[in-house]
Amino acid sequence: MRIAIPLYHRMTALDAIGPYDVLSHLPGATVTFVGEQTGTIRTDTGFLGLTVDATFDQVPEPDIILVPGGPAPVPVEGALLDWLRAADRTSTWTASVCTGSLILGAAGLLKGRRATSNWQARAQLAGYGAHVVEERVVFDGKYVTGAGVTAGLDLALTLAGRIAGDLVAQAIQLGLEYDPRPPYDAGSPERAPVEVVELVRASGR
Amino acid sequence: MRIAIPLYHRMTALDAIGPYDVLSHLPGATVTFVGEQTGTIRTDTGFLGLTVDATFDQVPEPDIILVPGGPAPVPVEGALLDWLRAADRTSTWTASVCTGSLILGAAGLLKGRRATSNWQARAQLAGYGAHVVEERVVFDGKYVTGAGVTAGLDLALTLAGRIAGDLVAQAIQLGLEYDPRPPYDAGSPERAPVEVVELVRASGR
Repeated sequence: MRIAIPLYHRMTALDAIGPYDVLSHLPGATVTFVGEQTGTIRTDTGFLGLTVDATFDQVPEPDIILVPGGPAPVPVEGALLDWLRAADRTSTWTASVCTGSLILGAAGLLKGRRATSNWQARAQLAGYGAHVVEERVVFDGKYVTGAGVTAGLDLALTLAGRIAGDLVAQAIQLGLEYDPRPPYDAGSPERAPVEVVELVRASGR
Repeated sequence: MRIAIPLYHRMTALDAIGPYDVLSHLPGATVTFVGEQTGTIRTDTGFLGLTVDATFDQVPEPDIILVPGGPAPVPVEGALLDWLRAADRTSTWTASVCTGSLILGAAGLLKGRRATSNWQARAQLAGYGAHVVEERVVFDGKYVTGAGVTAGLDLALTLAGRIAGDLVAQAIQLGLEYDPRPPYDAGSPERAPVEVVELVRASGR
């Protein structure tokens, strides 16, 4: 099971690292962090560097593609989109977290498909021809999209169950002690206090 | 608010990246990833490289220290422990995720304090003189320890609330869309099916 996760400047680290730390524990899995060129990219805050180990052309046919999101403008052309279109032809699963679905959309891969994204990016996702579903993890055939950032954990565990069965997925969950206890109930725009939603909208995060 | 997160070979990436993606959004926060030497470290799976941007001696007095865990043997001496002991003298908060608490313990910082760790490391934590508490996030004065891996998200959000207030912490939660919906209820040894607990124990994760 070859998993490829593209990294690029100004991406959100947790979009990639949450699913990576789930999927990398699938039996026989290898994860390759791919990019336009090998070396270090800086994530959205500027505080963190992640290492690209292989160029896109070195990983042409991964079994699983997982695209992280971030605040950077969605590319309209370029190596990432070219690679996604080509690699998607043979992938078993093509997945995204947060605004990673906008990148899949820009590559033309979500036209007419059920998909989700960060709650603030739903209108933009619809602009790529996707049928936007307000759920945390959305499957449409081999296409799997997650809501904002931390939804990547739920997406990856669900995908792990489909690939390797419930026992293995549950063992991964226990290995990560994923028994969430958020101190607030503010993780969705439907339940967060109005002033919190307004604060986040104003900050553009 | 200067936050320092030490990185080292064979650490678990998500232990660091979860809290980083919460705490980096505190107003005025800077995060520095520190280590014995600058450059790239490889995390526990071998699949991911993270960048150390500063050496320990370049970041002597952070306000917040956050130590990630991992499967590597706990050091009994060395630069990380020396730095932790020194930096802890002036820190406002000294925190750890997963077996990061064993490293704090090895540095002598948890003697007689309430603390937690990965569920499989509780006995080892007690060996450092800590009073082990089976909770997901444990505060004892300025010392804050989290349970396994993903507990870092709950720890960091709780800490964000103490530092910047509930509104800011809730805005960070919404920004990360942290509204967890795990597909299984297997994230704690108390509730996971027995065969899942046995599988994880056997794998040593």
